[in-house]
Amino acid sequence: MKFTCNKDNFSEGINIVLKAVTGKSTIPTLDCIAIETKEGKINLTTNNMELGIKTLVESDIIEEGSILINAKIISEIINKLPDEEVYFESDTNDNVTLKCGKAKFNISGLPSDEFTFLPQIQKTNQVEISQFKLKEMIRQTIFSTSSNDNNRILTGELFEIHGNVFQITSLDLYRVSVRKTELEKSYDSIKVIIPGKTLSEISKILSSNEDDLLNMYFNSNHVMFEFDDTIVLSRLIEGNYYDINKMISNDYETKAVINKRELYGSVDRGILLLRESDKKPLVMNIEENSVCMEMNTKIGSMDESIEIKKEGKDIVFAFNPKFLIDVLKVIDDDEITLYMTNSKAPCFIKDADGTFVYLILPINLSSAV
Amino acid sequence: MKFTCNKDNFSEGINIVLKAVTGKSTIPTLDCIAIETKEGKINLTTNNMELGIKTLVESDIIEEGSILINAKIISEIINKLPDEEVYFESDTNDNVTLKCGKAKFNISGLPSDEFTFLPQIQKTNQVEISQFKLKEMIRQTIFSTSSNDNNRILTGELFEIHGNVFQITSLDLYRVSVRKTELEKSYDSIKVIIPGKTLSEISKILSSNEDDLLNMYFNSNHVMFEFDDTIVLSRLIEGNYYDINKMISNDYETKAVINKRELYGSVDRGILLLRESDKKPLVMNIEENSVCMEMNTKIGSMDESIEIKKEGKDIVFAFNPKFLIDVLKVIDDDEITLYMTNSKAPCFIKDADGTFVYLILPINLSSAV
Repeated sequence: MKFTCNKDNFSEGINIVLKAVTGKSTIPTLDCIAIETKEGKINLTTNNMELGIKTLVESDIIEEGSILINAKIISEIINKLPDEEVYFESDTNDNVTLKCGKAKFNISGLPSDEFTFLPQIQKTNQVEISQFKLKEMIRQTIFSTSSNDNNRILTGELFEIHGNVFQITSLDLYRVSVRKTELEKSYDSIKVIIPGKTLSEISKILSSNEDDLLNMYFNSNHVMFEFDDTIVLSRLIEGNYYDINKMISNDYETKAVINKRELYGSVDRGILLLRESDKKPLVMNIEENSVCMEMNTKIGSMDESIEIKKEGKDIVFAFNPKFLIDVLKVIDDDEITLYMTNSKAPCFIKDADGTFVYLILPINLSSAV
Repeated sequence: MKFTCNKDNFSEGINIVLKAVTGKSTIPTLDCIAIETKEGKINLTTNNMELGIKTLVESDIIEEGSILINAKIISEIINKLPDEEVYFESDTNDNVTLKCGKAKFNISGLPSDEFTFLPQIQKTNQVEISQFKLKEMIRQTIFSTSSNDNNRILTGELFEIHGNVFQITSLDLYRVSVRKTELEKSYDSIKVIIPGKTLSEISKILSSNEDDLLNMYFNSNHVMFEFDDTIVLSRLIEGNYYDINKMISNDYETKAVINKRELYGSVDRGILLLRESDKKPLVMNIEENSVCMEMNTKIGSMDESIEIKKEGKDIVFAFNPKFLIDVLKVIDDDEITLYMTNSKAPCFIKDADGTFVYLILPINLSSAV
């Protein structure tokens, strides 16, 4: 195989497919990028067997062919090449020669027939969405997936499409995040669980431009994302997701509207008094026009009051301040609204349009303090 | 003790004295900042017994006193306070109350009589220098101090003053860095070894303004740096430093002038082929108008040629590319000049004015390859 291509294009393509390389594999081919010539372009493919990415790079092909090359090594080399055209050559013994400017590298590759290329997926159940919107919805929910593999369903996010409504849900044992949006068109119903790892990797390569579109295709085992010159293919997580409609209630006894920046500052300062092993809650005393935040740990104590607009009963509510910070980080509004029923029922953070709902379970004060 | 002060001034003062806190001490007072009222200001002091720092913070003192407080905790809290005036109070039981805006913290301190305050040092052997110049000279030499405590002298830098010439030297077993400058005034001769740790910490708090001055004072055991409202006091390393005049020679057989950016790019790419355990050298073939750089490791091989201006013999020279990168990083000139005698003698990188000399030992090619 022989081709030349623009260094920046090559580097960009490699950085995209790198997202499916764990770098921790014991099987050398899983840590490789497959490079093939196809229809006048270079195809770059990576596949860790759960997540696979393929992207195209514009190039001048001199001789057709294919090869596997260690992803980390090729990416480090390409990123440090001078800004000139790259010449790439592989011979029948899988030796690779890279030339760029006056620099010349020789490295060893592997034969491409040892690689598991991405399966051909039928483009069924197509759904179109803005890349930026999907990226934002992932950012606003991914933090409440679980990293514990014991319950695989919790490591993923539930994607649901009903008509023109698209909803992403994630939850762990202490909180739920729901993000909802309207799509341009209506679609048949879809309900799948996508690995959190897939979503956090794909969100890194999605465009931040509202107008750049993406297509998702769903079948029984896979989801495929297609955008620009890139395909991301991921296995789905099997199983039945929790019925969050049972957890989310619209009843409340107390409603409090709080300036987000002030609340963030206060909770952030409270966290300073926590150490790793500490399970101490942040206690919120919601009164007529103010909320008093209190924290009391081995390191010391803090209290601070913030003005609020309140409707309903006074309430005392205790929770893990890190969970509230996670939510405050991803809400872009200047004010947030808390809805609470009593100290033992969840607290909800919702907007008026229903585009997001966050649920945080309380810490039982009598057992915690 | 009671006082109020500007949050930014307090935060800046704490960040300065933090540089002498290792945070790894088994003695709690060594991880503390001593806070005292003195002559209408707040004195902040830290002391890890090798390095001590004292700085003043403007404040309104309401009640005199002193206390010790864990450096990490107070710095985290102060940095996250809102931008308002800070009220600080400690009671007779060493409980500290901090108020700022609507936030209030209570933390425990320690009695200040458990602290080892900085000894009074006679201001002898004063030497004046620009803060920025000292910061630069440290940056340009500190990388070749040794981190291995087995030979303590090598963990420090030699400071020498003779007349109006100030020279800093550092060396490990493979290289030597010498940086020289002229001072505004002339001084009596001084020759001391200052711990590298002291110098790397002090360089973080020195001003980047050429006009901001600093005074150094030397006695048999200590060096004291005095600048702005800050004093840094460090123990010296005892012992006789190596005589680098014996190592540095002005003779050469080959002189090569090379574009620094091109050489940096090439050596940086060569390093990509090294892995931790690898001791493979970068081989430089210096010929009439070019140098060909070659690297050959388990990962692969690289070669690249750069145009040079050469005087004298052709030469082949092999060395650890990381040592050359360290030097190239700190030289600000566009072109650098290498001086070599033969493949077994050191390579020198010097400028025409003698403001710097870097020596790198070769790797014996016959044993390495």
